Amino acid sequence: MSATWLPSLITADPEAGFDLAIKLSRVAVKKTQPDDETRARLRAGYAEDFDALISISHVVATNFQTVAAANDYWRTTPAGS
Amino acid sequence: MSATWLPSLITADPEAGFDLAIKLSRVAVKKTQPDDETRARLRAGYAEDFDALISISHVVATNFQTVAAANDYWRTTPAGS
Amino acid sequence: MSATWLPSLITADPEAGFDLAIKLSRVAVKKTQPDDETRARLRAGYAEDFDALISISHVVATNFQTVAAANDYWRTTPAGS
Amino acid sequence: MSATWLPSLITADPEAGFDLAIKLSRVAVKKTQPDDETRARLRAGYAEDFDALISISHVVATNFQTVAAANDYWRTTPAGS
Amino acid sequence: MSATWLPSLITADPEAGFDLAIKLSRVAVKKTQPDDETRARLRAGYAEDFDALISISHVVATNFQTVAAANDYWRTTPAGS
Amino acid sequence: MSATWLPSLITADPEAGFDLAIKLSRVAVKKTQPDDETRARLRAGYAEDFDALISISHVVATNFQTVAAANDYWRTTPAGS
Repeated sequence: MSATWLPSLITADPEAGFDLAIKLSRVAVKKTQPDDETRARLRAGYAEDFDALISISHVVATNFQTVAAANDYWRTTPAGS
Repeated sequence: MSATWLPSLITADPEAGFDLAIKLSRVAVKKTQPDDETRARLRAGYAEDFDALISISHVVATNFQTVAAANDYWRTTPAGS
Repeated sequence: MSATWLPSLITADPEAGFDLAIKLSRVAVKKTQPDDETRARLRAGYAEDFDALISISHVVATNFQTVAAANDYWRTTPAGS
Repeated sequence: MSATWLPSLITADPEAGFDLAIKLSRVAVKKTQPDDETRARLRAGYAEDFDALISISHVVATNFQTVAAANDYWRTTPAGS
Repeated sequence: MSATWLPSLITADPEAGFDLAIKLSRVAVKKTQPDDETRARLRAGYAEDFDALISISHVVATNFQTVAAANDYWRTTPAGS
Repeated sequence: MSATWLPSLITADPEAGFDLAIKLSRVAVKKTQPDDETRARLRAGYAEDFDALISISHVVATNFQTVAAANDYWRTTPAGS
């Protein structure tokens, strides 16, 4: 059985959680457009387009909400402390 | 009674949950535009359009939030651990 | 008293919940543009527009979050099981 | 003291909650563009624009999430029942 | 120490909470574009642009979700009552 | 081991939480477009573009939801009191 690309939403710390949110955002694109060359070609466009970069940040923010909730926000206090 | 396309939001693991989020995103389009040929024709457009690919990733991220919450984030710790 | 179009957010199963999310998305448009003819005319446009179809899927995903939470995700396990 | 336009998020039923979500969406526009004439003039544009109508539905869906959560989804069962 | 512009998310009532959501939305713009003159010049544009007004309402709706949750929706019943 | 840019989501107060939400929004852009010069060049564009400024505010609002939840909304009194 091929290894899963998403074994868990649990990460060691918030930074690793943010990286996972970026990965989730990119995999959704890859699952829609599997061709690596096409995605590489499109990158030249969005990497220089502020609307696209802002939209990407919004997708990452949405996925980061999910990963952070999964990790109980890597708490170290404030949960009703 | 025809089988339901969405028997449950519970999945075995996060990867299956992500695939379900993609399915939810696509079914909403199919329920709006039921014609397979039209959707296939439109695919040639959005699959090469970075704005569309980013927006699709945002829809998947929103549906993944729902599926992840349904599955208690496939926890294996951090829920206030 | 005229019957309500939205008696409850509780549905029998996830598929009925997804249909309710689609209904919520469409009623919001109808409440903004009550004219059936105008909405039918506009349909010819958005049904062939991938950006619009993706955006519609995003609205359905947002409403499905609400309906799923209302129904405790039609659980059958994982709530911290 | 002038009466508040938003005394509470609690509504009698889901339909009243959906109407409140529409009101919240419209008040945010009014607070940004207070001139009634301008808003009336703009209405002629967005009421015939499917992208705008879809975006409006998305705002209503977001506000409906808030109102529904405030009202515990007008439950009548499924909260972990 | 200069006073904070955001001492708390707690407000007296929902209307004050909505105003705070509008303030949060505007401060994010101000933190990105600190020049008052530029923002005033841009206002002439977005105040007459229905797409922009709808998008602003969406940002306010997102911030209102946060403020409402912080204030336990200013409850007066329904939390599982 | 290089220091993490995101040691925790816990902040002293709401204002620091809002600043963290802005940082999260910007880092997502930086991780997509690492070149400082390109990002500086693009800034001249989005800082004068009201659609972009509104979209940025929406990303910050989404990240602020996450940070606020992590900090239990900096509640000075218990939720539901």
